[in-house]
Amino acid sequence: MKSISELQVTVAGGDARQITVAEALASLFKKVKVFGHPQPALPPTTEYSCSLIEDLAGADVIVLPIGGMNEEGLIWSYKGEPRIDFGRYMTSLTPGTLIVTGSFTNRWLDMADSCNLEIMQYADDDEIAILNSIPTAEGTLQFAMEELPITIHGSQVVIVGFGRVGMSVARIFKALNARVTVVARRKESLARAAEMGCNTILLVDWKQTALRVDLIINTVPALVINDEILAGVAPQTVVIDLASAPGGTDFEAAKCYNIKAILAPGLPGLVAPKTAGDVLASTIPKLIEKYFQKGGGSHAV
Amino acid sequence: MKSISELQVTVAGGDARQITVAEALASLFKKVKVFGHPQPALPPTTEYSCSLIEDLAGADVIVLPIGGMNEEGLIWSYKGEPRIDFGRYMTSLTPGTLIVTGSFTNRWLDMADSCNLEIMQYADDDEIAILNSIPTAEGTLQFAMEELPITIHGSQVVIVGFGRVGMSVARIFKALNARVTVVARRKESLARAAEMGCNTILLVDWKQTALRVDLIINTVPALVINDEILAGVAPQTVVIDLASAPGGTDFEAAKCYNIKAILAPGLPGLVAPKTAGDVLASTIPKLIEKYFQKGGGSHAV
Repeated sequence: MKSISELQVTVAGGDARQITVAEALASLFKKVKVFGHPQPALPPTTEYSCSLIEDLAGADVIVLPIGGMNEEGLIWSYKGEPRIDFGRYMTSLTPGTLIVTGSFTNRWLDMADSCNLEIMQYADDDEIAILNSIPTAEGTLQFAMEELPITIHGSQVVIVGFGRVGMSVARIFKALNARVTVVARRKESLARAAEMGCNTILLVDWKQTALRVDLIINTVPALVINDEILAGVAPQTVVIDLASAPGGTDFEAAKCYNIKAILAPGLPGLVAPKTAGDVLASTIPKLIEKYFQKGGGSHAV
Repeated sequence: MKSISELQVTVAGGDARQITVAEALASLFKKVKVFGHPQPALPPTTEYSCSLIEDLAGADVIVLPIGGMNEEGLIWSYKGEPRIDFGRYMTSLTPGTLIVTGSFTNRWLDMADSCNLEIMQYADDDEIAILNSIPTAEGTLQFAMEELPITIHGSQVVIVGFGRVGMSVARIFKALNARVTVVARRKESLARAAEMGCNTILLVDWKQTALRVDLIINTVPALVINDEILAGVAPQTVVIDLASAPGGTDFEAAKCYNIKAILAPGLPGLVAPKTAGDVLASTIPKLIEKYFQKGGGSHAV
C-alpha cells in the first residue's frame, strides 16, 4: 500500500470552503487537483483541473461538497461554474477509491458499494457537527433579527430538539436574554436545558402550549411543526427550520395560517464561509489521514 | 392652567414608532392628531391630520421624530409621505407650546427661545437611552454578522467608548463569545469592562495596539477612529460607527486603506421598529405628564 504522501486527491464542486479544504490537504498529499472552481481562486499549492474524467481516474481520494450528491447524482458547484454530474462518473472510478463527503443518500451508497468504492461521510462526525453548530446558531440569530420587528432581548423563543445544533441555538438566544423554551423528546435533554436556564416542555406535551411565541426554531428532521401545532400559533410568529431538506415543518399548512416559515439548511457556508471553511480544513485532513493510517477500507468515520 | 386631559397633541412625521407613541398619548390627552402618516395606519383613538398648519396652531404639545429637524428645518416623514418643513411653521406656533423631540440643534433651540416655545429633548434621558441601547446593540450584531465572513464566536472585536451604548454592545458580543476589547477614556469605565470579562485599553494608549482585529465598533461622537488608527488596521477589518452623524470615523481615510466603514445611527427604528416604538411609547407620555404636573416651562427632561 502506498503512503499518504504518494496519493493524489481531487476536490470537486462546492463553495469557497472546498478551496480552504484543498489547501489544507495539499500539505499532506502528493498532489491536490481542484475541479469546478475558477482558476484564480485556487491556492498555488493546488492544481486547476480542467478535465474531471481524467483527474477522477487518477485520484486515490475524491472530496465532494458537504451536501454530497442530489438524487440525480449532481453535485453543486461554485457560482458561475456548472453543476457537476458526478453520479455518472462513479462507475468509471478505480475500485478502492475513497470518496469523502458530508453525507450520501442510500441510492449512492448502494452504487458505491457495487463499484467497490469507499465512502467517508463526515457530516455526522461529532467534532465537525459541534463546531459547525456555532455558525449555524449565529446564522439562525441573524435570520431571526432580520425577520422579527422586535429585539431578541425579551422575545419568546421555542427551540425544538436539543441535539448538537439545538443546544448551541439555545445558548445563543439565552445569551441575548430571549425567553427560551426547549421542546425535546428525552428527559435528560430537558434536564440540561433547564440547567442552562431554559424553560422545558416534553415534545408529547407541546401542542397545548404553543400559543404565544415570537419565534420557533426547529432542529428535528421529522414532521414536528405539523398542522396541529401551526393551527395554535399566532400569525406573526416566525418559524426557522434548520433540519436538512425537506425540514420538519408543514410549510403548506404554515402558508395557510399566514405564518412565515423559512427552511434554512446549510447556514455555516452561507453566513460565515471563512469560519465554516476553517472548520472543515482543520478536521477533514485528519479524518482522511486516520483512515489511511488504519489501512483504509472502513466505510464510516 | 388646563389639566392634561383637556390638552391637544399633534404628532408629526417619523416612522411607525411615532404611531405607537401617538396611540399611547391618546389615553392621556383630549385629542391626538397625527400628520405625515397614511390614514389607514393610524389607530382609531387618534385623528388623521390633513392640514398641518391648522393642527399645529391648535396644539398644546407637538411630538416630532426622535431625530428632530435637520439644519434646514425639515423633519423626515413616513416613506411615501413628503418631508415636512416644520422649521418655517415655528414662528406661527402659540407661545408656550411644548415641542417634544429626541434632540434639537442649537439653531432651532435659539429659534424656539425667541418664539417662547418650550422644548423637551428626550434623547439624552437615561431610561430611554439605555432601553434604546438594546436594539442598537442587536442591530450592530446583525450588521457585523452580515458583513463578516467569520463567526462572532472567536472574533476579535474592539469597542470604543463605554457609555450607555458601549456597555450594551460589549455585553452582547461578549455573550456570543467574541474576544472583546474595550477602549475608553476613563479608568472607572475600564474597571467595569474588566469586571464583565473584557480586555481594556485606555484611549490614549490605543494606537499601538489596533493592529489585529476583525471588527471595530465606535460609540464616541468625536474623531477617534482617525487616520493614524486606520493606518494600523488590517484591510479586512470592518468598522461600524454608532455615533450620530457625522460619526467618529475618518471615512475618507478608511476608503483609502480599503477598510469597510459603515455609519449606522438610528438602528433601533431600523432593526426592531416594534420594540423601539414600545420603548418610546412607554416613556414619552410619562415625561410629558411629569412636565405638566410640574406646571410646565422647564426646558429639559
